[in-house]
Amino acid sequence: MAAGKIQAPIALDAMGGDNAPDCVIHGAEMALIRHPGIKFLIFGNEPELTPLIEKHPTLKASCEIVHTPHVIASEDKPSVAVRRGKSSSMWMAIESVKNGQACAVVSAGNTGALMAISKLVLRTLNGINRPAIAALFPTLRGECVMLDLGANVESDAQDLYRFAIMGDAFARAVLGLSRPRIGLLNVGSEDLKGRAEVKEACSLLKDSRLSLNFHGFIEGNDIAAGTVDVVVTDGFTGNVALKTAEGAARLIRTYLRDAFNSSPVAKLGGLLASGALAGVKDKLDDRKRNGAMFLGLAGIAVKSHGGADAYSFCNAVSVAVELVAHRINDRIIEEIGHLEPLRQNSLKLEAKTEQLQKETN
Amino acid sequence: MAAGKIQAPIALDAMGGDNAPDCVIHGAEMALIRHPGIKFLIFGNEPELTPLIEKHPTLKASCEIVHTPHVIASEDKPSVAVRRGKSSSMWMAIESVKNGQACAVVSAGNTGALMAISKLVLRTLNGINRPAIAALFPTLRGECVMLDLGANVESDAQDLYRFAIMGDAFARAVLGLSRPRIGLLNVGSEDLKGRAEVKEACSLLKDSRLSLNFHGFIEGNDIAAGTVDVVVTDGFTGNVALKTAEGAARLIRTYLRDAFNSSPVAKLGGLLASGALAGVKDKLDDRKRNGAMFLGLAGIAVKSHGGADAYSFCNAVSVAVELVAHRINDRIIEEIGHLEPLRQNSLKLEAKTEQLQKETN
Repeated sequence: MAAGKIQAPIALDAMGGDNAPDCVIHGAEMALIRHPGIKFLIFGNEPELTPLIEKHPTLKASCEIVHTPHVIASEDKPSVAVRRGKSSSMWMAIESVKNGQACAVVSAGNTGALMAISKLVLRTLNGINRPAIAALFPTLRGECVMLDLGANVESDAQDLYRFAIMGDAFARAVLGLSRPRIGLLNVGSEDLKGRAEVKEACSLLKDSRLSLNFHGFIEGNDIAAGTVDVVVTDGFTGNVALKTAEGAARLIRTYLRDAFNSSPVAKLGGLLASGALAGVKDKLDDRKRNGAMFLGLAGIAVKSHGGADAYSFCNAVSVAVELVAHRINDRIIEEIGHLEPLRQNSLKLEAKTEQLQKETN
Repeated sequence: MAAGKIQAPIALDAMGGDNAPDCVIHGAEMALIRHPGIKFLIFGNEPELTPLIEKHPTLKASCEIVHTPHVIASEDKPSVAVRRGKSSSMWMAIESVKNGQACAVVSAGNTGALMAISKLVLRTLNGINRPAIAALFPTLRGECVMLDLGANVESDAQDLYRFAIMGDAFARAVLGLSRPRIGLLNVGSEDLKGRAEVKEACSLLKDSRLSLNFHGFIEGNDIAAGTVDVVVTDGFTGNVALKTAEGAARLIRTYLRDAFNSSPVAKLGGLLASGALAGVKDKLDDRKRNGAMFLGLAGIAVKSHGGADAYSFCNAVSVAVELVAHRINDRIIEEIGHLEPLRQNSLKLEAKTEQLQKETN
């Protein structure tokens, strides 16, 4: 089990999210059943948390509460949270990762604040300018990783290149793939199409001597088709694509619900097929894929959906467990570490070629 | 009927698309039943077309064939098509719109070539720098228009502003709305979020004294929710969003098909609900919404899906009929025509304010 390799506790922001702290505590208890041996550092209002934790003896034996007087609200602006949030459950949970008291942090709180404070406290990894949000997406072949889902609104070719490296590490850790196929999201599969930065990132990935399994360009429909395991895109496009797909899925669910309610015969049909349809619902259940990671930070920060229930929050904890166990940041550092010598080497080669050309002329 | 207002024939590129010329001819016959009184100018290989048209007496009485010796293939690069395609069915059909022989052109051929030749031959409308591809999308409330779907990979604030004006005209013409709600696609609904050009376009639309019904920012999930009637975005994001939604819909259809085939009971359930499910399939049927328009050109050019069947092609012809009948370009010219005086006026006001400030100091 992945959990066996984890020594330090996982920090939980018990006060973040619509259903906090109940779902966080209940979710942590569920995670302990799934990953026996893990420990938690739970940040939040102690008087409120103590009676809740009392109800969960397994959790009680595996956690420590750290009292934090303040809470960052879901409507707080990130800039305000950064200025005034130092004694909040979110900030202190993140800081415990920085200090080495915890190996990862999981929060269902305000996304913008979590991103801003994580960046400020944990800092980015050496060689990474922009962190990215990565999460899983259902496909015809299983699941794929998509990034960036909105940490940045703009990304240049070098950013996209690094997203590919980070997505590769994420897919190996969370999906357990040995050589994930990586695709660059574009408006056509031909080399000539698309935005300048996407074309440049494609060249970088093609010429890269890193051991990435680069498939090339993919289009929007390739995401759910499962053409690749890692979908690389900028945060604007990724965010729109993810939410558009969610919207389309909701539209179809509504159509289906209305169809099965449209007549007694249709209702009976739905009833007979209900077992099979429950399977479809389960496959599309976002709660299963809860837990988006802020990749590229010098510490593991996992964002749970704000509306997460206990099962959903437990899945976000699982993502943290996998990422810690597979030492995701060591993998990213290792790959990124290869970039600079490669760049220096290619600069040297270029200079040499130029010199040789001069000599022959 | 809209068709009653149409005098000039509609030009058809009979040789474009996977199922040409059969589906084009059959689709034209179907369109005649739907819009009695319209006429066609059919461009293509006459020896091939004549026997086909013979089978459709209604069409035969309402069309004229123009022989064209060449065909632009689906794999031809736009640049090659522009250089060598002058005697092709596509080029000559577009040229007939330019010459006033036809009121619109419909083609199921190579999208890139159709766009490039249309731009070259028809030119953009005065005040429009970049044309946009607009098409319909199903929503919980009915349908919405989305643009740009890939005519451009990058758009600045002024482009997006003009897309809003063109989308408004398209929604009034095709959806029959008097004041379509217009939304700007972004990664959040707050004013502070998003790319610079999107935020600037938002200011332009808010400050605009044109009579647009501007809703503000929307997110990806708002598209299918039907929050607005016109979704404005750049061609890269729009193309990815559209194809991602198509991919998600295909994924769910596959899950459902597998579910209904998973057991005899589920199969029976599916059978009982089949009538209701057919309604869902119909609502999601892309063929119903076939016909994307190249908005912003000085002539109406409608692109049918390359794989269109006769029913699908007939719907693309209907889009052309609606756009001609509602004089879409007159509407766009009128709105765009208001922009320059408004700009001049606001420049004058600014200068006046500055003068007054100087005088008071």
